[in-house]
Amino acid sequence: MPENLLSNINNPTDLRLLDEAQLPQVAQELRDFIIDIVSVKEGHLGASLGVVELTIALHYVFNTPDDALIWDVGHQAYGHKILTGRREIFHTNRQLNGISGFPKRSESVYDAFGVGHSSTSISAALGMAIASNLNGDFNKQHIAVIGDASIASGMAFEGLNHAGVTNANLLVILNDNAIGIDPSVGALKNYLTAVKEGKNPRQNNMIKSLNFNYSGPIDGNDIFAVIKELKRLQKIKGPKFLHVITTKGKGLQQAEENQVQYHAPGKFDASTGEIIPKSEENLPPKYQDVFGLTVLDLAQKNKKIVGITPAMPTGSSLKFMMDALPERAFDVGIAEQHAVTLAAGMATQGMTVFCNIYSTFLQRAYDQLIHDVALQKLPVIFCLDRAGLVGEDGATHHGVFDIAYLRCIPNLIIYAPANEIALQNILYTAQLGLESPIAIRYPRGRGNIPNWKKEHFGHYQKIEIGKANCIKNGTGIAVLSNGTIGNNVSLALNEIENPDTIAHYDFPFVKPLDKNLLDEIFKKHKNIITIEDGTIIGGFGTAILEFAAQNNYHSNIKTLGISDEFIEQGTINQLQQLCGIDVNTLKSLFRSYINK
Amino acid sequence: MPENLLSNINNPTDLRLLDEAQLPQVAQELRDFIIDIVSVKEGHLGASLGVVELTIALHYVFNTPDDALIWDVGHQAYGHKILTGRREIFHTNRQLNGISGFPKRSESVYDAFGVGHSSTSISAALGMAIASNLNGDFNKQHIAVIGDASIASGMAFEGLNHAGVTNANLLVILNDNAIGIDPSVGALKNYLTAVKEGKNPRQNNMIKSLNFNYSGPIDGNDIFAVIKELKRLQKIKGPKFLHVITTKGKGLQQAEENQVQYHAPGKFDASTGEIIPKSEENLPPKYQDVFGLTVLDLAQKNKKIVGITPAMPTGSSLKFMMDALPERAFDVGIAEQHAVTLAAGMATQGMTVFCNIYSTFLQRAYDQLIHDVALQKLPVIFCLDRAGLVGEDGATHHGVFDIAYLRCIPNLIIYAPANEIALQNILYTAQLGLESPIAIRYPRGRGNIPNWKKEHFGHYQKIEIGKANCIKNGTGIAVLSNGTIGNNVSLALNEIENPDTIAHYDFPFVKPLDKNLLDEIFKKHKNIITIEDGTIIGGFGTAILEFAAQNNYHSNIKTLGISDEFIEQGTINQLQQLCGIDVNTLKSLFRSYINK
Repeated sequence: MPENLLSNINNPTDLRLLDEAQLPQVAQELRDFIIDIVSVKEGHLGASLGVVELTIALHYVFNTPDDALIWDVGHQAYGHKILTGRREIFHTNRQLNGISGFPKRSESVYDAFGVGHSSTSISAALGMAIASNLNGDFNKQHIAVIGDASIASGMAFEGLNHAGVTNANLLVILNDNAIGIDPSVGALKNYLTAVKEGKNPRQNNMIKSLNFNYSGPIDGNDIFAVIKELKRLQKIKGPKFLHVITTKGKGLQQAEENQVQYHAPGKFDASTGEIIPKSEENLPPKYQDVFGLTVLDLAQKNKKIVGITPAMPTGSSLKFMMDALPERAFDVGIAEQHAVTLAAGMATQGMTVFCNIYSTFLQRAYDQLIHDVALQKLPVIFCLDRAGLVGEDGATHHGVFDIAYLRCIPNLIIYAPANEIALQNILYTAQLGLESPIAIRYPRGRGNIPNWKKEHFGHYQKIEIGKANCIKNGTGIAVLSNGTIGNNVSLALNEIENPDTIAHYDFPFVKPLDKNLLDEIFKKHKNIITIEDGTIIGGFGTAILEFAAQNNYHSNIKTLGISDEFIEQGTINQLQQLCGIDVNTLKSLFRSYINK
Repeated sequence: MPENLLSNINNPTDLRLLDEAQLPQVAQELRDFIIDIVSVKEGHLGASLGVVELTIALHYVFNTPDDALIWDVGHQAYGHKILTGRREIFHTNRQLNGISGFPKRSESVYDAFGVGHSSTSISAALGMAIASNLNGDFNKQHIAVIGDASIASGMAFEGLNHAGVTNANLLVILNDNAIGIDPSVGALKNYLTAVKEGKNPRQNNMIKSLNFNYSGPIDGNDIFAVIKELKRLQKIKGPKFLHVITTKGKGLQQAEENQVQYHAPGKFDASTGEIIPKSEENLPPKYQDVFGLTVLDLAQKNKKIVGITPAMPTGSSLKFMMDALPERAFDVGIAEQHAVTLAAGMATQGMTVFCNIYSTFLQRAYDQLIHDVALQKLPVIFCLDRAGLVGEDGATHHGVFDIAYLRCIPNLIIYAPANEIALQNILYTAQLGLESPIAIRYPRGRGNIPNWKKEHFGHYQKIEIGKANCIKNGTGIAVLSNGTIGNNVSLALNEIENPDTIAHYDFPFVKPLDKNLLDEIFKKHKNIITIEDGTIIGGFGTAILEFAAQNNYHSNIKTLGISDEFIEQGTINQLQQLCGIDVNTLKSLFRSYINK
């Protein structure tokens, strides 16, 4: 057995000391290392396996970190992390106080730009490249590695369109594996497939139209071919574009064959590749499935319903509807801006549109929500998946800003269900016909009603818009919760002594507020606590402050939620603790009021 | 003299009764009508003159409003408005209670989709077209007319990319005049120019790569050629793309020759085309020029400064720097997302980036601001032009949401100068080096210091981050203003009796707040009024409510600003009256407190 090479590579300088002939062995070891760790610690698998050779070749040929290397999105950067000084701590990936699942500037000088959301790499690399020219550094290279799903997003096009008229030392590498998290879609994908299959003569090249020096396609899993081409491109000034073909999940048969499932497979057997099944019996449903099953059921009864997802059919569970009613459910690719205005266009023709976007990605379509939907009062139904703290994906992905950035938009209803039943009922209510758009935010992961599907699915009840609910009365303080974080309040109240003094109200509607109930509450309670799974600044609690000020109530109001800082990765419970909204912290807080 | 045809066209049905041979006369009359009205009433001129023939041809060939016609942005839709029942009220264009300067659904059934911001038309039209298919209406046409500046924006690419894999009855008409408000930029523009000049063989067509049926380029000012081609395309199913070449300002010599100036020329002589000069002597400077002149002056001294504008060099006055220091000032086209991440990339390399974006257009780059700038704490300097009420551009363009949507972002400084001197000084301060990004918001139009340039320009003073200022002491209520709306407070206080009881504080920093001064104020004043040129929900006033709640202050706080509705067009003073933040309303309000 040959000496292990990877264990001696502590940074790319070590890598560059090896002979080119040794690199296939490094690739094998790197692949094994990733599989070994991810099989136990979980994380994103397929993307990094696909670019093992490309990763090694880039660090072998280019002078990182002086040359800037940017991984678009960053799911594929595990090999990069392992080769750049983080092999020993790679097992802490995505954990609290561990390394981030994405490249991150504060973590390593080799992480030239923090990523997470898609399609930022070309703009960032171009900015660096233009700055290098201004700084008189004409030899520095700036490399963006971007997938075929990401490059179809409008932002990537904007970057290419600008880069093509510059003399910046920019190398865009298209890592074409025909899949993002789900298979890629769109006309560009078809075009790229035709290029790969040799159906488009080279001279008919879209990228060349944008004034790039185009090369490829080459086999990105052939390390010698990649190195040879990178060395050639290294000597060429100006904007360059290399098209490489890779296989997502390369080297693990199941991951190659089931690319969607092995994007982030959870725990699996490192030697066989078999996913270790989790017992899902008696677990509450995922909110995603509550959405997906309910929308399909409603769509089967209401022919006007259509569904839209920007590239998250599996993640959002819109897949159920796409499989059953393909003509009415659309994956538009990583194109949140387009998704929202497409929804608006459909709504003008009387369609009832469920537009499902992760909360953090709706930030990409904020203008379209204001300008194309709310201003025209089109009753699009936005389903904001993964709202609130999302856990291990960390700072780039928490959906904590939505309440604050949505609340200022006129005509918009904002709702956060307390549980699976409320989510189902608001989806039902929304498709009955609203006069305004609505944003329904719900978290990643499971609810708390194990028998939801058996006992509640399909038993629809119409929700009165703006109505809040009294969960329990109390004589002392009143706790007003928005959304599923209210379950923490209930759990805390169940576990403390003398909970009778504490009233608990569920305010699912951030907008419009239930002003009648608020009048009652403010007349009765001198001390009020609000709690939400979103930023304290500008959020639900702030809406209560605004109500109080406008109505001259002078109660003491304490607003709980996410404080004014970016929250890193960890389990949701760990992060709730950091923010002081977990059950234990609430128990202490409630006790302190009771004992006052 | 032939009978006037236009005066008998009250809708497109009337138009369709004419012989094709009569249409050039209609075109001449329509052009004259636009020139006559806009020369007196002001508005957008050049774009509508350029598409007179296209407008007539579209309504002549297609069955509007059953066929859906969407004008991207809508600057070019004056002819459309005049032909679709709004000839008699066209003189109310852009006025309070008049017609909107942009197509608007609530105004006419011929306005299939409300527009204003760029690049929405393809997505909206595609949404309608898909809905028509689902509704079983396979003959309905859906037409998006989009300019060459708008089609270069990422959102348009997203729409094309999706449309190309559908069988939707979508006709995208590229109105290629090589200019937006300023001349178009980017690799796509160069490509289109090459196509026009016959340098690209037809088969090498980028649009065809996206699976569109491409035709053109044709002369869009040749009405017979346009009609002939539209009739041909009308019979073709699926996504189609027509490339037409027009001349912006067509038919008015000066407008053709000075396309930037005649985009919206103000008043001019309808017969000669000469712009009627305004006396600018002794007027205070435009905030835009304070920005443009100051940034140029600073950049001449500080080599690290770069400037970025997404397609607004003239409007923002970054033009001064682009002319003097072209290698360090960038117009990236209508590409706000790219602009912000490009700025972030430059900032990682130590550049001091002034990224100037209209407040309403920063909504397009909200995610990039959070994810690429604030999360990485890169000290990009955002200059948010046209913040607050913008006047005649109306509901699509008011920059009133920014404080609310920015306040929840960690690491971000938010500043609104009270006047020209404060704007100059914060620009100076920012380029000295901050540890965080900053958003500087200032309004459209002129300040209130006539001698600013002569007496103040270049006399820089460093501003302490987070510091608020006492403008005047008072024993009764305290008024806390943010930004230039504070001048309304000062004017009101100057004009009322017994103003001594009213204290006035300037809080330019929405974030971080001056907590020491707030402690003083809250200890002294039981009644507090906040005022801002932005939404009441989530804005500066709300920040004061949050401070009060966190510090257990129980003063009465009244928050003034923009209420929770979309504000239409009018003069800024008229709109301030509607919102209750004009000088007269403030006078009444202050008197009511004094006389309590």
